[in-house]
Amino acid sequence: MSEKRTPESTLAINTEIVLPNDTNTLGNLMGGKLLHWMDVIAAISAHRLCKRVCVTASVNNVTFPKPIKLGDIVTLKSKVSRSFSSSMEIFIDVFVEDRSTSDQIKVNEAIYTFVAVDQLGNPISVPAIEPVTEEEKARFEGALRRKQLSLILAGKMKPSDATELKALFES
Amino acid sequence: MSEKRTPESTLAINTEIVLPNDTNTLGNLMGGKLLHWMDVIAAISAHRLCKRVCVTASVNNVTFPKPIKLGDIVTLKSKVSRSFSSSMEIFIDVFVEDRSTSDQIKVNEAIYTFVAVDQLGNPISVPAIEPVTEEEKARFEGALRRKQLSLILAGKMKPSDATELKALFES
Amino acid sequence: MSEKRTPESTLAINTEIVLPNDTNTLGNLMGGKLLHWMDVIAAISAHRLCKRVCVTASVNNVTFPKPIKLGDIVTLKSKVSRSFSSSMEIFIDVFVEDRSTSDQIKVNEAIYTFVAVDQLGNPISVPAIEPVTEEEKARFEGALRRKQLSLILAGKMKPSDATELKALFES
Amino acid sequence: MSEKRTPESTLAINTEIVLPNDTNTLGNLMGGKLLHWMDVIAAISAHRLCKRVCVTASVNNVTFPKPIKLGDIVTLKSKVSRSFSSSMEIFIDVFVEDRSTSDQIKVNEAIYTFVAVDQLGNPISVPAIEPVTEEEKARFEGALRRKQLSLILAGKMKPSDATELKALFES
Amino acid sequence: MSEKRTPESTLAINTEIVLPNDTNTLGNLMGGKLLHWMDVIAAISAHRLCKRVCVTASVNNVTFPKPIKLGDIVTLKSKVSRSFSSSMEIFIDVFVEDRSTSDQIKVNEAIYTFVAVDQLGNPISVPAIEPVTEEEKARFEGALRRKQLSLILAGKMKPSDATELKALFES
Amino acid sequence: MSEKRTPESTLAINTEIVLPNDTNTLGNLMGGKLLHWMDVIAAISAHRLCKRVCVTASVNNVTFPKPIKLGDIVTLKSKVSRSFSSSMEIFIDVFVEDRSTSDQIKVNEAIYTFVAVDQLGNPISVPAIEPVTEEEKARFEGALRRKQLSLILAGKMKPSDATELKALFES
Repeated sequence: MSEKRTPESTLAINTEIVLPNDTNTLGNLMGGKLLHWMDVIAAISAHRLCKRVCVTASVNNVTFPKPIKLGDIVTLKSKVSRSFSSSMEIFIDVFVEDRSTSDQIKVNEAIYTFVAVDQLGNPISVPAIEPVTEEEKARFEGALRRKQLSLILAGKMKPSDATELKALFES
Repeated sequence: MSEKRTPESTLAINTEIVLPNDTNTLGNLMGGKLLHWMDVIAAISAHRLCKRVCVTASVNNVTFPKPIKLGDIVTLKSKVSRSFSSSMEIFIDVFVEDRSTSDQIKVNEAIYTFVAVDQLGNPISVPAIEPVTEEEKARFEGALRRKQLSLILAGKMKPSDATELKALFES
Repeated sequence: MSEKRTPESTLAINTEIVLPNDTNTLGNLMGGKLLHWMDVIAAISAHRLCKRVCVTASVNNVTFPKPIKLGDIVTLKSKVSRSFSSSMEIFIDVFVEDRSTSDQIKVNEAIYTFVAVDQLGNPISVPAIEPVTEEEKARFEGALRRKQLSLILAGKMKPSDATELKALFES
Repeated sequence: MSEKRTPESTLAINTEIVLPNDTNTLGNLMGGKLLHWMDVIAAISAHRLCKRVCVTASVNNVTFPKPIKLGDIVTLKSKVSRSFSSSMEIFIDVFVEDRSTSDQIKVNEAIYTFVAVDQLGNPISVPAIEPVTEEEKARFEGALRRKQLSLILAGKMKPSDATELKALFES
Repeated sequence: MSEKRTPESTLAINTEIVLPNDTNTLGNLMGGKLLHWMDVIAAISAHRLCKRVCVTASVNNVTFPKPIKLGDIVTLKSKVSRSFSSSMEIFIDVFVEDRSTSDQIKVNEAIYTFVAVDQLGNPISVPAIEPVTEEEKARFEGALRRKQLSLILAGKMKPSDATELKALFES
Repeated sequence: MSEKRTPESTLAINTEIVLPNDTNTLGNLMGGKLLHWMDVIAAISAHRLCKRVCVTASVNNVTFPKPIKLGDIVTLKSKVSRSFSSSMEIFIDVFVEDRSTSDQIKVNEAIYTFVAVDQLGNPISVPAIEPVTEEEKARFEGALRRKQLSLILAGKMKPSDATELKALFES
């Protein structure tokens, strides 16, 4: 496909209410439940870019800096940040709604990688994506550095070849 | 607590059968479901080390190199690989059972970080852990490097202070 | 609250993938599951208007003109269409995503009524709402007619007092 | 089928205990969950009349006049009230059990419409039904009026042709 | 309570449709799911006798002589067969509906024992029950023999004291 | 298969955290949920012996002597205790973890029978099993007595032919 797409065109939104079975004994949302919700919404963003079945390839990084409570209204927003030959990096931003103002307070973000596959499960190529906003551009740039890092950690790239990443340690 | 514990003493095991609702349209286990199972079993290992409520702090890295099928018997084994002041790094190894031999085939591994908290959700200190097997020792060593990396990525440590990690790029 | 709000400010979005357990023996989404999803997202819109717990008062009308399939990506969008003293009428529009173009195809719409309650479950007053778009205005107007109709059906209003509705049969 | 059937022959009963995940933050059964249970039991009544797969065509009216609590024993009873060419109107009565006497207290009622379909999803004809009790006769009569009303609301019938319904506004 | 009750007054009914997640890889209802449904409906019958919280004390015997299929309509009917000082024996009969005639075909039966408890979980006394039909009488008689058997198996009664049961082996 | 297997080779382990939806109104794990978990893990042990689909044939005996609480960590361990021509008896031991010591406290045990079936659901033969530990030997011996008892209760064996069982009543 020659037509370039924007991250915005892959935006997927999910809003959930935290139910009792989603919480731990402190009454807070369990990390595993949130990871599950993130995976589903990210798969939808990936699908919106390439119109094919997309499967989770990796979870690059997720942090849970503050607890989400029973009964909270949680909104997940996901967008493709960059696409490679057959893989896509997806950012998921998570917001909790302030109960008296309905303000959306960002509580965490996550980065997942998906691969587009055919019916036999073999990887297929995906369209390119063109970032528009400042945040989209920053995430697009960072995606290459994160890809190098994960290749090194998996032993598939020599640290000396990771030009972008190496610069980080030479300043 | 002065007594040192071994990773083995924190071993937690969960065996699941992949049901229809756990699968995507290709009939393979969805990544999000596996992430959820991993989180629960890791929380149990963390609890076995410190006997306190433990909450997910981050998912450092998970890859999904090959699909797990509907009806597969999946076994997750988790162990604390290293403990820091109030956090613990947990490794989860995932196995699928060969249907005709019952051999356990390793399909992926994941690294989660948990924090022990009191009833108000404040971090509390956790016991040290002493690795015994070769694999446990290698994971114990790597944990420090991974911690440095995540501190850098979060902007909480200067790359130049990450002695162990830096060495990786200087060889 | 004196400040008027718009329907748009109450917009809530949920995107789901139809899983095996959501379907009947024809492989289509069961009506009951969709009714459940509609109720949750409508409760969130109601909450966004009044910042209080809102409970379902009635389902006025829902039709299911065409089937939604296993694996379909379903998006629900809900907005408050009109508020009365302590109740709110909510419209939920449901879309299915075309698998090759990602176009959103509207498959049905539903009208629910919610009531804002205090911690004892007693009704409390809700803010007024001011429609902006043509569709919002049409729904705002219709809400009064639908309220009269449901009061008549419940035996709480005489048909002769339902001015708006009566006009419908006199043309 | 020439043989006429009674509403009683389509009676379907479901008894559930309200669990934590079925409740909102006030500890009351969520409307959406009850709508889901109603849909399933109504589908069974519809099936008992026509022995074919039946799909939800519409929810005509449901009201939730009083809350059902966590731990309550809820019984749903559904019966076909009238059949048309390929559709059936179903009444669902909902009862909560008094905890100290086991008396069944009626808490709400709902009206759903189902359509019988073949394996391709096309509507097929359904047997007629003959009401026996006073309540069954009243519901049988009302079904025609409700059908006219929904045809008018859907723009498929002129109000002036809805003889039965029109009478309501002319008294 | 001096008033005697009949098994019929404790009758509880549940009708379920077998969904994909309830089945094994052969497409048949998993035994564990049916055991769960049986437990819930039996708890309701027990509650209807004594109006108190009732907890499962034991599952005496359940057999699964023939498979129940995906999409089958399953009806469970449970009744207290006999009450002892604080325990009750419950029979659950399970029926599957013939898809073309709606005939109820009995597929299995189960016997559970429940104990009535107060808020601290301590056993409390339950009302007596008086069987009416032939089947109810036979089950009432058998309950004593089954109780002796379970006391022997638990090492709480000497076989020689189990008068009724012993007779079985002396013929 | 001529090779004999040990019960240990069929050991299957599942660890669960008791969630809100698993509990009754006293906050204790519902019996039905535990019966479900037992069935799944026992099916895995049965599969590990014969590498075929195994279906629940009966639940011989389960007792629930003490309550398991919300938030408890529950471990189920199951092993085949004896195999017959096409059926296997499985023992499931259930442990709850002491929250301050992580000691495994045994809370109950259950005995299930499974049958190995081919794709048409017909029984097929299963390998023999050879007990090693004292407990395994005692359970292996008891299995024959339990089989006789269930055949008598089902009217398929005359009490006088149940040599082993009869001895119990003649001492």
